[in-house]
Amino acid sequence: MGEQTEREAGSTFVPKFDDKGLLSAVIVHDETREVLMVGFVDAEALAATLETGFAHFHSRSRGRLWKKGETSGNVLEVREILVDCDQDALVISCIPQGPTCHTGEHSCFYRVLENGVLQRVKT
Amino acid sequence: MGEQTEREAGSTFVPKFDDKGLLSAVIVHDETREVLMVGFVDAEALAATLETGFAHFHSRSRGRLWKKGETSGNVLEVREILVDCDQDALVISCIPQGPTCHTGEHSCFYRVLENGVLQRVKT
Repeated sequence: MGEQTEREAGSTFVPKFDDKGLLSAVIVHDETREVLMVGFVDAEALAATLETGFAHFHSRSRGRLWKKGETSGNVLEVREILVDCDQDALVISCIPQGPTCHTGEHSCFYRVLENGVLQRVKT
Repeated sequence: MGEQTEREAGSTFVPKFDDKGLLSAVIVHDETREVLMVGFVDAEALAATLETGFAHFHSRSRGRLWKKGETSGNVLEVREILVDCDQDALVISCIPQGPTCHTGEHSCFYRVLENGVLQRVKT
């Protein structure tokens, strides 16, 4: 198989980090499948996630490895990692311990854009 | 409210584009909530999405505006746009016309990482 075909159809995990060394990582709730947050992982964060079973990210603002919940205790226990066709994005399915968003909301996506204005999601 | 509080708690949509002018955009199926693909939108793609009701992206590889399905016909009809706490990521809930992935899969996330190897998701 050519490189493109192997990347898309093969069984070899060859993550395609971007020019900053990052993959997109979408955290979904393992039971409800709701999107809880979106972050980025570099090779270090990916390795830490795989080794520990808890979601780690690369903080773009702080420029360092960040274990989700390291200060709040609201960790994300990883159940499954899905990889997309070109291997530059992951869906990390987790059981969250506590609210995922630092605001105390269970998901970071608590607002919907309606006619140019943000409204709280009805729950 | 301070800038941070308004960004997180307010109703004003002030997208926080990164240093390349991009937001992360997670496409989910409006009915099943399954993650179908992950892309990036710049201000142009966001405006085109809002104006037309069909998902547009900024292609990082091609460096241009890209309407999903412009060649394949497999467009994404937008039903709802969720915005995260710091306004640097969107969840765009869509009704897909045809398969979303260019490989013909309904989702780009058709493989799961198990013990370092990619396996097809059981459906």
